[in-house]
Amino acid sequence: MLLKELRTSVLESNLELVKRGLVLYTFGNASGVDREQGLVVIKPSGVDYDDLRPEHMVVTDLDGKIVEGDLKPSSDLDTHTLLYREFPTIGAVVHTHSEFATSFAQAGLAIPPLGTTHADYFYGPVPVTPPLTDEAIGGRYVHETGVAIVDHFKKHNIDPLAVPACLVNGHAPFAWGKTPDDAAHNAVVLEAVAKMAYNTLTLVPGHTGVSQALLDRHYFRKHGANATYGQAKH
Amino acid sequence: MLLKELRTSVLESNLELVKRGLVLYTFGNASGVDREQGLVVIKPSGVDYDDLRPEHMVVTDLDGKIVEGDLKPSSDLDTHTLLYREFPTIGAVVHTHSEFATSFAQAGLAIPPLGTTHADYFYGPVPVTPPLTDEAIGGRYVHETGVAIVDHFKKHNIDPLAVPACLVNGHAPFAWGKTPDDAAHNAVVLEAVAKMAYNTLTLVPGHTGVSQALLDRHYFRKHGANATYGQAKH
Amino acid sequence: MLLKELRTSVLESNLELVKRGLVLYTFGNASGVDREQGLVVIKPSGVDYDDLRPEHMVVTDLDGKIVEGDLKPSSDLDTHTLLYREFPTIGAVVHTHSEFATSFAQAGLAIPPLGTTHADYFYGPVPVTPPLTDEAIGGRYVHETGVAIVDHFKKHNIDPLAVPACLVNGHAPFAWGKTPDDAAHNAVVLEAVAKMAYNTLTLVPGHTGVSQALLDRHYFRKHGANATYGQAKH
Amino acid sequence: MLLKELRTSVLESNLELVKRGLVLYTFGNASGVDREQGLVVIKPSGVDYDDLRPEHMVVTDLDGKIVEGDLKPSSDLDTHTLLYREFPTIGAVVHTHSEFATSFAQAGLAIPPLGTTHADYFYGPVPVTPPLTDEAIGGRYVHETGVAIVDHFKKHNIDPLAVPACLVNGHAPFAWGKTPDDAAHNAVVLEAVAKMAYNTLTLVPGHTGVSQALLDRHYFRKHGANATYGQAKH
Repeated sequence: MLLKELRTSVLESNLELVKRGLVLYTFGNASGVDREQGLVVIKPSGVDYDDLRPEHMVVTDLDGKIVEGDLKPSSDLDTHTLLYREFPTIGAVVHTHSEFATSFAQAGLAIPPLGTTHADYFYGPVPVTPPLTDEAIGGRYVHETGVAIVDHFKKHNIDPLAVPACLVNGHAPFAWGKTPDDAAHNAVVLEAVAKMAYNTLTLVPGHTGVSQALLDRHYFRKHGANATYGQAKH
Repeated sequence: MLLKELRTSVLESNLELVKRGLVLYTFGNASGVDREQGLVVIKPSGVDYDDLRPEHMVVTDLDGKIVEGDLKPSSDLDTHTLLYREFPTIGAVVHTHSEFATSFAQAGLAIPPLGTTHADYFYGPVPVTPPLTDEAIGGRYVHETGVAIVDHFKKHNIDPLAVPACLVNGHAPFAWGKTPDDAAHNAVVLEAVAKMAYNTLTLVPGHTGVSQALLDRHYFRKHGANATYGQAKH
Repeated sequence: MLLKELRTSVLESNLELVKRGLVLYTFGNASGVDREQGLVVIKPSGVDYDDLRPEHMVVTDLDGKIVEGDLKPSSDLDTHTLLYREFPTIGAVVHTHSEFATSFAQAGLAIPPLGTTHADYFYGPVPVTPPLTDEAIGGRYVHETGVAIVDHFKKHNIDPLAVPACLVNGHAPFAWGKTPDDAAHNAVVLEAVAKMAYNTLTLVPGHTGVSQALLDRHYFRKHGANATYGQAKH
Repeated sequence: MLLKELRTSVLESNLELVKRGLVLYTFGNASGVDREQGLVVIKPSGVDYDDLRPEHMVVTDLDGKIVEGDLKPSSDLDTHTLLYREFPTIGAVVHTHSEFATSFAQAGLAIPPLGTTHADYFYGPVPVTPPLTDEAIGGRYVHETGVAIVDHFKKHNIDPLAVPACLVNGHAPFAWGKTPDDAAHNAVVLEAVAKMAYNTLTLVPGHTGVSQALLDRHYFRKHGANATYGQAKH
């Protein structure tokens, strides 16, 4: 994908979040990475979505140094760049404060895999990080937010493409994917899954979720060599 | 109904599900059956609803063998065809992951008949299947999903036209009817009924529902020779 | 109000219910009464709202005998006419299956006056009737639904204009007012009040509501000779 | 800001509340203050939002005496003017009966700071006043509503610009800000924060919120000399 196309794709993902009701005012941001050039394209900070154009996207290197753009990048940039450095298979990151996923993040609860909607996208619980320490909050806070995600995935040996989202404790979700379109799609599904998990857990407190066999079946239906869902892509 | 009309009717039912907010992205499918010709018309898999045209519908026989169409049928086809083979009075099947009905399916809870909205459409609880065994999940999974529904209805002696929907445990609802329009209508009402049941049960846990007399009164108000609801149809 | 104007007003009230999201498909009906002529104007049964015109409204006498109109009246007609006969101060009746008010009706719970939104419209709890007996259900059921409302108001000495709504146990709400516009407005506010009561009671189970002083203050702010709300009407 | 501009700004804030779904019918009002002239601009009482024009706004002095305008001011005027007299740093006040914030007010519960969405706007819990005494309700009720807010903030030493909202017990929220735009924005965010707090507290009853370190970090990210959020304003 050319950098120009990546700008457009990142913008469209930001707008998809708005269209799907995941974003109030400017509470959200999407980015994409060009792995060959080592460049990140990200939404600028605090600009109205109605006014966003591809040329407003900010381009940085993988350490967050601005390469192109007159506007300040999203204040969450350092989380995005850390995820790109530590999760080399991902191509895009999305952050929202969508209502139900954020409610689980605030509750400090992972979202258990309660049904096949979840299992089609997330191969296991959507995890929640431990709360950040006061030192992490008082230090490189945005960077440490990414560290909390990466540490949790490494400690629990979770493949970030098998579980393409994480809840940051007391904050909100991050989702990712191979492309900006994928990442936004995963964030939208995460919100739907979180909403149904909320309903399920308030009906049956403590429900832990479906069987491993069902998780396997649904995950491999959409992923891997034997995927049977959708039209074959040529 | 001619096959051409059935294609249009199946498409319209798919679009009704979208219009009523029961379907996110491509999470849903509707089909209809031509009993005389033994043909099933079903939505293709993973195609955007905006792009769907009658000619995209896939036609199969009652065993799911494709008779017409270049696209892959919905991945849930084998559940639909099993329901047609085992429930000879039904003419259409709808599957969604609508939020509240799916939440009950995830909770493993039947929806009790808590009021007359329910009683006008479902003559008793909307049942939930037992969880599928690991063997069923690892085997002909989509077929076994239909088997779970049919077995539950036969074991409990439920007439599929008196209770035109079932929740699949850990998955989501299936609804049906005499025509694609009926089936979609039943799926929409099921979601409304599930939402109100959620509210009622979180206000009064364990509520089991209205009296048999009220179930009888409302069911026979809309069904059977003495129906008094709506305008007479000529 | 001329009968012609009443037809239009009744139609507009029906459409207001749809616009405010209180009605799914044809689950609702509004009527108005011309006290001088002793005539009731009511929505026909089971006709799509999109197709409704003033001339489709059905006119009956106060006993429900059709005076004008080719269509069947709403199947709830006998409840409306009973309310008109027994509550001589009301001029219009609205029935919906709106989500939260219906959820309270299904739960068999009155809506307590938990705040000033409630107190501005309902001078005390919105009551719920006792469940109908099997005899009442098996007999003149729709008529008996009205009897349950009227008996409850008379037994508890409630002025129907001070509390212009009632929940029918296991069924749904009826609301009323001086005009069709008032009745629809009260039904819309009832739903908003029910939704906030649901939230409040799931946060603080058993909350019984605000003080009598606050009920008095808000009720008399909008009603009676010393009303201070809104612009003076000339 | 000229008085003419303030009228337009107050009107726009009223309309923003409607656009964001915080206001049903006429249940809400916004005002702004011109500190130099000592004049308050406020929405008239009970006028449809569709019909509101800048010239309909009512102008009063800080004691609520009408200076310009033929319409009656909002019935909540005396609360607004008290807040302007007692909180000299604020420039605008907004009152709504938005669903979730009102539900907390009805429950008599403060909204704890459960996450960073909250912390970005409210530096600590959004407080709830004690219930008004019967004497206060029977006396200068609207004035006393403001007294309850101000007394609570003074007693607990809360800076009204650090926590720009308060829940009035058994009633609904008031929010404020430096400008009418700020005040409306704070009311919209308050509702989103209340909704997520509702979800969080029904998942994890008794959750008290994030650490002081996180509150500090997020509050000072958006406020004060070292703010890093948004584009620099020239």
